[in-house]
Amino acid sequence: MTASPDSLTNTYSATQASPALAPLRLGLAGLGTVGAGVVDILQQEVKLLQARTGRAIQLTHVAVRDVSKPRACDLSRFDYANAITLNEDTLGLATNPEIDVVLELIGGENGIAYDLVKAALANGKHVVTANKALIAHHGLELAKLAEENNVVLAFEAAVAAGVPILSALRTGIAANRVSRIYGILNGTCNYILSRMYHAGMDMEAVMQEAADKGFLEADPSLDVDGIDAAHKLAILSALSFGTEPDFAAVRTQGIRHISQDDVRYASAFGYRIKLIGEAIYADKTLYQAVFPALVPKSLPLAAVEEGFNAVVAETGALGTVLLQGKGAGSGPTGSAVMADVIAIARGDYFAPFTTPASDLRAAPPMAQDAVSKPFYLHLSVVDKPGALAEVTRVLGAHQVSVKAIDQHELSADGAAKVVVITHAAPVGAMQEAFASLAQLPYCTKKPVLMPIITESIA
Amino acid sequence: MTASPDSLTNTYSATQASPALAPLRLGLAGLGTVGAGVVDILQQEVKLLQARTGRAIQLTHVAVRDVSKPRACDLSRFDYANAITLNEDTLGLATNPEIDVVLELIGGENGIAYDLVKAALANGKHVVTANKALIAHHGLELAKLAEENNVVLAFEAAVAAGVPILSALRTGIAANRVSRIYGILNGTCNYILSRMYHAGMDMEAVMQEAADKGFLEADPSLDVDGIDAAHKLAILSALSFGTEPDFAAVRTQGIRHISQDDVRYASAFGYRIKLIGEAIYADKTLYQAVFPALVPKSLPLAAVEEGFNAVVAETGALGTVLLQGKGAGSGPTGSAVMADVIAIARGDYFAPFTTPASDLRAAPPMAQDAVSKPFYLHLSVVDKPGALAEVTRVLGAHQVSVKAIDQHELSADGAAKVVVITHAAPVGAMQEAFASLAQLPYCTKKPVLMPIITESIA
Repeated sequence: MTASPDSLTNTYSATQASPALAPLRLGLAGLGTVGAGVVDILQQEVKLLQARTGRAIQLTHVAVRDVSKPRACDLSRFDYANAITLNEDTLGLATNPEIDVVLELIGGENGIAYDLVKAALANGKHVVTANKALIAHHGLELAKLAEENNVVLAFEAAVAAGVPILSALRTGIAANRVSRIYGILNGTCNYILSRMYHAGMDMEAVMQEAADKGFLEADPSLDVDGIDAAHKLAILSALSFGTEPDFAAVRTQGIRHISQDDVRYASAFGYRIKLIGEAIYADKTLYQAVFPALVPKSLPLAAVEEGFNAVVAETGALGTVLLQGKGAGSGPTGSAVMADVIAIARGDYFAPFTTPASDLRAAPPMAQDAVSKPFYLHLSVVDKPGALAEVTRVLGAHQVSVKAIDQHELSADGAAKVVVITHAAPVGAMQEAFASLAQLPYCTKKPVLMPIITESIA
Repeated sequence: MTASPDSLTNTYSATQASPALAPLRLGLAGLGTVGAGVVDILQQEVKLLQARTGRAIQLTHVAVRDVSKPRACDLSRFDYANAITLNEDTLGLATNPEIDVVLELIGGENGIAYDLVKAALANGKHVVTANKALIAHHGLELAKLAEENNVVLAFEAAVAAGVPILSALRTGIAANRVSRIYGILNGTCNYILSRMYHAGMDMEAVMQEAADKGFLEADPSLDVDGIDAAHKLAILSALSFGTEPDFAAVRTQGIRHISQDDVRYASAFGYRIKLIGEAIYADKTLYQAVFPALVPKSLPLAAVEEGFNAVVAETGALGTVLLQGKGAGSGPTGSAVMADVIAIARGDYFAPFTTPASDLRAAPPMAQDAVSKPFYLHLSVVDKPGALAEVTRVLGAHQVSVKAIDQHELSADGAAKVVVITHAAPVGAMQEAFASLAQLPYCTKKPVLMPIITESIA
């Protein structure tokens, strides 16, 4: 079968003729947090899975790096535990004739995860993965391989775990052209920013607290530098706009430079600070960016707290739709993996990015000035006459117009903290103004610039 | 094909063998608001529909009550307008061999809509409908008929229009047992309550404004008495819990008795008033109710304004998930109809209520005291010593414990307005207490009782 649209459909006559189906056999690679969540559902929801798919779904093979390591889940609790093979032969799952679907729950953009997925697809096995890095980097190649082999490659769990956004794009909102998709895509950053707001803590203290509670990865940079959110955004863009996944083009900024002052100043103006991933498709060009932003407190996104994620899609006929759910964790991610398994068990065939891989368009990045936003600007300036005038002069020279300005208390070094809210300005122009401001001799430290999210579900 | 789970699936081998598919031919009944939305999408998104389904989707027949009536949509704008048959033979759609899918966009629980859907299913045609009253009342019978005839009966548009909740229950969150589903299911009530809150208007004035703007039906009782929301809730329950749709069991209360005082008092305690539909399934019994309730301002539901709808599902592994979108209108409802058409075009076969009709369980209503909630109580009492003591005595006698109490200004008749917030109390006990309070000689008019929504996505 080729990947042409015509071949991506089933027929009713075929359905009518289908006999009762054999159990769907799963080979699982990786028994970490997500793997344990999948095992839990397979153990606890046997009847529900049968009722919703019309066939049994059985775990037949499990591959882990070290079989002697203690696990959060207990494979012996399956009725058919004796029939489950547990070993360290991960790549063996790809060629095992007793496996219909390979679940890749290892992680990492390259290495064994990539090798396994590629080999499984090439061997005609469906693949379900929670691996956002893998799909963001190799999605197009893997989608083509899946379609050539007439198998499903599905990754609902890779984007915002418990938020069923990929299946919504494929089903419930499929009749709509999406023009913009944005949201809160990283639970760790959202936890940090929520705690900074509600507990008044500095980022360092929150990160220590999160590490103590086990919420934080040993190396938190994937999360706090925005890379994890950028992986998810690249996948969302491809499904939303029918464009090739293009992770390299995502402009990515993390949250490390956000201070408690910023959280407080933003709040005084009526905003919450959130790490936002945003993609816009217009005139066949693509804007993709991850950045901390000010979200008006009146918008639903502002109320998305701690580990929750939320995605807003702006579409044609439907208008705006918002989906919100837990962004990570064993249960939510395992549930998303199993949603894909259910679709496969039912025989739903779909292209990995909904649009067949050969029809995905390469979209050049949108010109920076094609997007306009209001901005928040936080500067530390020497407390001398002329400083404020100089700041506003630089903004004006770049055609950035000031909406509100507020001067806060002097800091220990005698600098005045100035917060500016601008009217909407082209992103490129604002960035040039920002570069000029950062070089002013009046500025005592690097200023902070954040866009303000304007459109909304309300 | 029977309705057994095994027969509700497709097979990959069948898919692989399928030839390129012929266009999917639609017969549309009803060219009102929703019909016009469907026509718009069919005209504007020809390429998108082809790309997402792998086949052409064409409108071939349109039946209306009066062909001479002017329409919001222009059928002549189709490329193939000459090939479209427009007439008044609605029932003829059901037997026309040139139609694959009948779109029932007429409305009403009985009459021509019911006759058309039944005849179309019996004649082996897929049916897509936006008709909540029809599905709430006749859903079980029609689902059985669809499954017996091996066709799809789909009604995404019937529940909260632009909120893709039915497909989410079928796909993205399908691996989860839902324990509770609730939300804002009627845009008209939400508009009225939003305007009362933001503009400080009385209900009468808002309803007049809505009527002037054309937002309000000539007979608004389906909306403001909660019946429309109850229709939707009965459908949501069936999909969420695998229970038979049971509209008659929904305890339904509208919003007509809510005053500007209630809106203001609730706000002072930190709540918004919303019309809520709520269903809970536990111990094989079913709680279904529609009622105005107090929603804490910190919850996402509180920020759902005007014409938006939102649904919260509380599930097993996934936890809580929220979907929000436009609750009505040509575009959102037309988009939901077309989402079902896309699924049919792709050959996705699914049982109307996800669980096969023969497996849906009849669930007796949950005992009133099995559900506990905190309550808001607003009483007008004579301004005399002992009145407040009597109120608290009655509550105590029914084991209802007071959390907060506030006495407001005297009204023109000299009565004191007393607002009580209770701790969680069994619904049955609270209703008995309420009946006793209403009969107190101290009460100068009928008191107002509303539950407070407690669980949340946050």
